[in-house]
Order: sequence, then structure tokens, then C-alpha cells
Amino acid sequence: MSTTISPLAPKSYPDMPEIKGVQFATASAGIKYKGRTDVLLATVSEGTSVAGVFTRSKCSSAPVDWCKARVGGGKARALLVNSGNANAFTGKKGAEAVRLSAEIVSRALGCADGEIFLASTGVIGEPLAAEKFSGVIDDLKVAQGSAGWLDAAKAIMTTDTYPKVATASVELDGETMTISGIAKGAGMIAPDMATMLSFIFTDAAVSPDVLQALLSGETGGSFNAITVDSDTSTSDTVLLFATGAAAEKGIEPVTTLDDPRVEILRAALGDVMLDLSHQIVRDGEGARKFVEVSIEGAECDASAKRIALSIANSPLVKTAIAGEDANWGRVVMAVGKAGEPADRDRLAIWFGDVRVAVDGERDPDYSEAAASAVMEQEDITIRVELGLGTGSATVWTCDLTKEYVAINGDYRS
Amino acid sequence: MSTTISPLAPKSYPDMPEIKGVQFATASAGIKYKGRTDVLLATVSEGTSVAGVFTRSKCSSAPVDWCKARVGGGKARALLVNSGNANAFTGKKGAEAVRLSAEIVSRALGCADGEIFLASTGVIGEPLAAEKFSGVIDDLKVAQGSAGWLDAAKAIMTTDTYPKVATASVELDGETMTISGIAKGAGMIAPDMATMLSFIFTDAAVSPDVLQALLSGETGGSFNAITVDSDTSTSDTVLLFATGAAAEKGIEPVTTLDDPRVEILRAALGDVMLDLSHQIVRDGEGARKFVEVSIEGAECDASAKRIALSIANSPLVKTAIAGEDANWGRVVMAVGKAGEPADRDRLAIWFGDVRVAVDGERDPDYSEAAASAVMEQEDITIRVELGLGTGSATVWTCDLTKEYVAINGDYRS
Repeated sequence: MSTTISPLAPKSYPDMPEIKGVQFATASAGIKYKGRTDVLLATVSEGTSVAGVFTRSKCSSAPVDWCKARVGGGKARALLVNSGNANAFTGKKGAEAVRLSAEIVSRALGCADGEIFLASTGVIGEPLAAEKFSGVIDDLKVAQGSAGWLDAAKAIMTTDTYPKVATASVELDGETMTISGIAKGAGMIAPDMATMLSFIFTDAAVSPDVLQALLSGETGGSFNAITVDSDTSTSDTVLLFATGAAAEKGIEPVTTLDDPRVEILRAALGDVMLDLSHQIVRDGEGARKFVEVSIEGAECDASAKRIALSIANSPLVKTAIAGEDANWGRVVMAVGKAGEPADRDRLAIWFGDVRVAVDGERDPDYSEAAASAVMEQEDITIRVELGLGTGSATVWTCDLTKEYVAINGDYRS
Repeated sequence: MSTTISPLAPKSYPDMPEIKGVQFATASAGIKYKGRTDVLLATVSEGTSVAGVFTRSKCSSAPVDWCKARVGGGKARALLVNSGNANAFTGKKGAEAVRLSAEIVSRALGCADGEIFLASTGVIGEPLAAEKFSGVIDDLKVAQGSAGWLDAAKAIMTTDTYPKVATASVELDGETMTISGIAKGAGMIAPDMATMLSFIFTDAAVSPDVLQALLSGETGGSFNAITVDSDTSTSDTVLLFATGAAAEKGIEPVTTLDDPRVEILRAALGDVMLDLSHQIVRDGEGARKFVEVSIEGAECDASAKRIALSIANSPLVKTAIAGEDANWGRVVMAVGKAGEPADRDRLAIWFGDVRVAVDGERDPDYSEAAASAVMEQEDITIRVELGLGTGSATVWTCDLTKEYVAINGDYRS
């Protein structure tokens, strides 16, 4: 947790309404950090549906393995998250640590191990001392409901400079329901997954299979469309919990994808996930600029996304942005290196509203002053039109600054 | 051209023997830089064979297009290279500039356009004023032979902090022959190609098809096994010229790949290319550490190389190296994100001779002091054993420092 808040941080936080059936408590277990909370226990009411999306790393962490093996059951009662230690690349000790963690929680709450979900974030390769959870679990149990959304978000931070929360309301059958989430992440952020950790909760009543389809469907355009440094975490986890408390108001649960209420939920969930994913980019380590990269006219959407990520991950593009240099030649380079269909002589590139290149060369009306004025903004849009087809994609990234190097040159020590 | 020489620069330069049939001259055409040479003219004797390997960028530069269209002819008389402007993404103007450049050279030397090879390096997207070559071509012609290898190497530098030359001798049929080359490159270095520019010359007599096979074969383990920043240039060009002057000594030309002399030439050419490619990494923008990444036990060599490059391109691995932090957890992360077959629980990782991880967790005998001592070295080896098969690969990279960000945050302006 840095003492300097990112200049791109939100200027204010939304009101986060209570979600019936969800309770938070936090504690300081002293896993790594001193003088701050590092454990979050979220309990959800009986019958809560759960869905999850996880890192595609071949070296996934022990808690990711645990959750992947259990999310198919579709039911959850509790989520235990710690910061300071990722419990990743910890071999048999890591698997034993998650087993012990789940046992500590399930014994305290009196529920089944298979309904406990776990996530850990922090240093890779250090054994996690799960017995530290024993020392705080009774306090956490007694304190359920005492922590708010920002408290929950703070307990899971690592190099984040601010807590990340988002919320949306929907009306289903005349009743208002809420979808709210928290996230952490600032570095080691890349598809797939780009999340680090995010936990989203709703009081809507949704069956696990519909919940999973909604979550998976909205991930591509949000958590999987952001990058800070192209580095994919071993621990990335998004979990979506639906307590179903709304059913008490007489609302029928959503149990099929052709239910017309699915699209209402999808839009709101997508908004919350996009909001949280943008906040992660805005807290990108050392970030001073928030950059949207849009590709149009590609052969297909997948091709567009690969080109967009080639630009968004290019160190030379990102350092040029840090230097407020309208160096569109590096955008050309990044398009060229993506390995995707592209015709140099049909390319057009915009920085903000300023077209800097067209038909494979510098725009005849190119104005260095106009392009430079765009680069001085805090939020910058780079748009590339390939002129080949109808494929499009948008991804978000930040600039690459000396502070990124400083933060990551001495993170572990 | 920086005023501060990379701390990883060679401490001395080899003696570079003259190669019969090759002559250099340099000039200051004022393309972008002031007070330094920026044009190299190399002339080669009639009948010289040529081979080339070029960037795979979809947005290749106009001179790359020119050379690709002509290298199949197999014959060369001259090479004109300029620094300061890449003549890339310059549309029809760019194609016209290379045509005019070749015409200026061919008229002065009295040879065919198709035997003139061209390369440009520098800023992308600015039209190249080829007429500037008219002003210096007569001087260059008169001065042929006046410039040495280091002069030639200096004229093609951009953000390089030192000129790059390498040489090797071979004995064919009792006669000594030489293979010598120059290279430039410091940033926008990644497979494929990783070269930026390199020009290699030999007095051996080799037919164009054998020359091309030799060059292509040695590229994978040298210029295509280095990365500074994962960014692939639009301009990468390696040209290999064989003047055949050795034939005057009564040596039969090498015209088939089953000629036993091919392996002698291959070994020497490989040495020169590896030497030059390492020099490029050692001049990586802002580099303070030279890093070898070796993968063993992968399913196949191609898989091993992709994993090696995932490590070598990871900003988090590279910043940890800059910070002399033995953060092997980030190596695990980079293995995991490569998308290649890997079994977390069979992984072993070494920093230098210190095994830091084995069987999917921290080495039981892990010593932070021993691992940290490795990281304090200037040259660092990272070795990963995957335990799956017999595939292996080695690539080279440098660390990612604040100086890289500084150099690239204001390069164009």
C-alpha cells in the first residue's frame, strides 16, 4: 500500500448500498504488512449462487486451484481473502495451507468446506502461514457486518494506492436490486486474466449456471481488456455471488438465459466490471495517463483485440505517452509487430480527435501542436482504422513511467 | 547517439582485418543529426553474392520492401545506409525516396539499380529527403576505402552508445578467409527480427543460395534470440555479402550445402552474428545487466523459446533484475503466462548456479544471500528446467531501468 495516491484515482466514491445477505469483516493477521488490515471475511447467506473466472496461468496459485475445483458446485457461504502473500508456487505446503484455511473458516461458521472460497494476493513463492487465520477467525466471526465496502476493498490491497469499489442498481419486476463489487490490482495486470482479484455481490436471485454465463460473458470486454504491464498473475480471481435475497420480495429467480431479465442484469454487471477494471488501470503502478486503445476495420474482433493489446503492451508506445510525445510511428510499429492482417497503406491513426496518419503516411494536415495538445491530457485515446473489415476492439492501459521501474525494482525486498 | 556509454560495452575492440572487395566511406548529410556522420556507403566488388533476412513486421519500411524485392537476384554492388530517419510509414513518398536513393548511387557507381541495397534507421513516419544523398555521393565515391569498420559502425548508430563490430577467421582449403560485420540497435529490439541493422561481409566465394541458407539458419539463435523491449522494428535488416575475392587465390566457390566447407563457414558466421547480437543487448537502452535466459526440459525447442521470451520480455522480471532482487516468483509468473505446456510442480529455477526453486516450491536449501549475490553481478543467468521433455532454448535480454523510460520518453522530440 503506497502512501502516494495515484493522480488518476477517482475523485469521489459512490454510495454503496447494503446488499442483503452479504456481510464483511476485516482483521490484521500480520501476514506481511504492519499496521493495516490484511484479511477479509465475507459471509453470504445460505443458498447463495457463485460463479468464477480465473487466471489462465499454467502456474496458478493454490487458492485458484481450490476455487476452480469447487466453483462448479455453484454454492457459497464464505470468502476468505488475504493480502501480503499469494500462496502461489508453494507446492504441497500451499495446497495444505488452503485446506487448513478452509477448515478454519468452515469450523467457525459451521458450513461445508466446499462452500468456502479463498483468494490470496502478494508475494509469490513464500509459504503462507494459514494458522495465522486461527488467531483472527473468532474476531472476524463476531465482527461480521462491521466492515463497509471500502474497508473490504482496503484489506485486499497490495501495491494499490486506493481501494476500488463500484455499484449499479437494476429494476427487476418492479423491485430494485443492487450489484456491487470490490477489486484490487495495480501491477502484474494483463489478460488473461487482468483482474488480480475482484469480488462482486448481488441480491438478485440467479441460478449458478446463468450467473456463470453472465460473468464469463462480461469478462472479455472488462477485466480481460486491460493491461498494465502484460504480466499475467498466478492468482487472478473474479467471483460473483448472488445471495438471492430478492426472492424474499416475491421475485422469481432467474434460471434460464432466455429470461428477458438476463439482459438487464448483464448490462449492470458489465458496468460494474468495466468500472472496476478501469480503476485498476488508473492505479497502474506509476501510471500518470489513462489510455484507451480502439481498433476498427480489422478482419475480425479477435484480430482487432490482438492488435489493440500489441499497442497497449508496447514499452515504446507506453514510454512515449509518459513523455507526452505524439510518437505515432511507434503505434505503426506495434500494429506491424502484432502478426495480424494489416495493410500498411490503408492504416489511419488518431490521437484523440486529431488524425495523425492516413493512407499509410503522415496526415497531410498533420499538426504537431494539435497532436501534442492531446498527449498533455490525463486521459488519451488512440484509435487505429485498419480498413480491412468490420472487426473492432477496445482495451485500456496506462503509461510506463520511471515510477513503475522504481516500484517494481524493490517490491519484494 | 548518447554521450554516456553503456556500462556493458565491450572493453576493447578486435582488430578488424581488411576484406578484399569491400570498401567503406561515410559522410554527414545532415538528415537529422548535427556534427556526426549519418550515411554509410559500402561498395563491393563485381560478382558479390548477397543474402538477407528482414523484419516480419506488417508495416515494414520502404527500404525493407526495396531489399526484399531484390535480394532474390543474389548479386550486389553497393549498400547505402542512413541513420536519423527510418523511411518507414512514409507511403508513396517513401517508395519514391528509395527509388531516388538507388538511382543516385547507381548513377555514381555505374551499376544496376537492382544491385543497390538500402537501409534506413531512425524516426518512423517522417518523409526522407533522399536528395540529401545527391549532395554527398561524389564525396562518398571518391572516399571509398577511407572509412574503417568502426567508422562504418558509427555512421549507422541511433540511440546506440557504442559502435558494434565483430570478426572471425576461417581456413578453407589452406587459405585464411574473414567474416566481419557491423550492427546497430539498442531499442525496438525483439524477435522477429531483433537486429535493427547488421551488415556482414566475407571474402569467401559462396553462391547466393548457399549464402542465404547460412544466414537464415544462423538467425534463429542470434538476432532472433535477443530482446530489449519486445518491440519489433519496421526496419530490421541483416545483409550478408560474399565478395568471392578468395577465388583469386584459386579456391573453388562454395555452391552446394553438402560441401564440407559449409559447416566451417556456418560456425564462423554464427560466432560473428552471436557476438553482434549480444553487443546489441549490452547496449539495450538503459541496460545495466546482461541476462541469459535458458530453458531446458520443454516439450520442444519452439515451446522452450516462447517460454524463454516470455521471461525475457516480462517487465516485472526485468525491473526485478534492475533492482538486483532475486524475485524468482516473477520467473514462475512468466513461465505461467507463456501459454506453453508447463507443470508447476515439476519446475526448477536457477539464478546463476544457485537453485532457488525445485519441485514447484522454494528450494529447501534456499539462501537469500546466495541468490542476491548472483543478482549483484553484471552478467546474470536464469535457467528453468521444466521436466517435460528435451526441448531447449537460450535467449538474451537486459534489465528494465528508469533510464529506458527516460531515453524513450523524449526520443523523438
